[in-house]
Amino acid sequence: MKNLPLEKAFLYIEPGPVVLIATNDGEKNNVMTISWTMVMDFSAKFCILTGSWNHSFDALMKTKECVVAVPAADMAKKVVQIGSCSGSDTDKFKKFKITALKADKVKAPLVKECLVNIECKVVDYISKHGIVVLQGIAAHIDNKKRGECLRLFHAVGDGTFTVDGGKKLNYRKIMKEKLPAGV
Amino acid sequence: MKNLPLEKAFLYIEPGPVVLIATNDGEKNNVMTISWTMVMDFSAKFCILTGSWNHSFDALMKTKECVVAVPAADMAKKVVQIGSCSGSDTDKFKKFKITALKADKVKAPLVKECLVNIECKVVDYISKHGIVVLQGIAAHIDNKKRGECLRLFHAVGDGTFTVDGGKKLNYRKIMKEKLPAGV
Repeated sequence: MKNLPLEKAFLYIEPGPVVLIATNDGEKNNVMTISWTMVMDFSAKFCILTGSWNHSFDALMKTKECVVAVPAADMAKKVVQIGSCSGSDTDKFKKFKITALKADKVKAPLVKECLVNIECKVVDYISKHGIVVLQGIAAHIDNKKRGECLRLFHAVGDGTFTVDGGKKLNYRKIMKEKLPAGV
Repeated sequence: MKNLPLEKAFLYIEPGPVVLIATNDGEKNNVMTISWTMVMDFSAKFCILTGSWNHSFDALMKTKECVVAVPAADMAKKVVQIGSCSGSDTDKFKKFKITALKADKVKAPLVKECLVNIECKVVDYISKHGIVVLQGIAAHIDNKKRGECLRLFHAVGDGTFTVDGGKKLNYRKIMKEKLPAGV
């Protein structure tokens, strides 16, 4: 995987894809599927909504770090399966044959099969709403992926998913004053 | 427009589409384009990230209400243009030929040309992060739309957009225990 400049990391969250959140609680790796995410600024600051109903939540709160791994459509079924069982009784890396790689700055693992991995610190937790605020501190992209492995997918919320690959629109000219530098 | 059951409203935010936020400050209607949104639960509770850099922010804070209007791909260019000028000096409904309709429960208008309109109350504002928490209280869908007018679109963040219309995946069986009733 190649370094992804942090100021480009938001490009993989803003479209609203389903993502994986990888954690390490000090003893073992775990991973959960999340589609409730939001970009907060261009510096790779994101939030996710989660809580004690997710097994990963304890590790997230204890270690104050995680990896946001962005899968593409080739992993869709696996990502849904990952989201349909619990790390409390399942070694998801083993069961779903995904590969944990060592991250640069956090103990949570990168997920090798994902298109993008963003190493994050938990910088705030808004308990009233279950909002976990994350600051990206390093990011990686697998720049050898092609085709379906580049297409993000989106949860509709009813168990169906849409895969990028329809029409693409380019409004960079209209938006030129609104775009951050370097994207 | 037909009534959309509130428990189905999240289905139009969860995929991560670009949305419009319509407000009325007591004197005039305004509308802004937002792609930083997050579903918070299945009751039509959402959040958006905004702040005083958006002209609509004052109306949102003063009136504590808005309409989240979900446009489809037929409106993409117009939605980008709406996001590239300010309500401080532009009557966006007039300039972009969009139609304000009376909402049932809020003074902010519905946007007739959108696929879905969700009337919302501002139930919290997390000033530290600029997160506005919205609770949907009524929702409407234009059930006569077909084709491109049903396809949501997603901001990549670099001025390009993806339009739903690629492959659709159905994992309802895998997810059956996770899905809320009625979707």
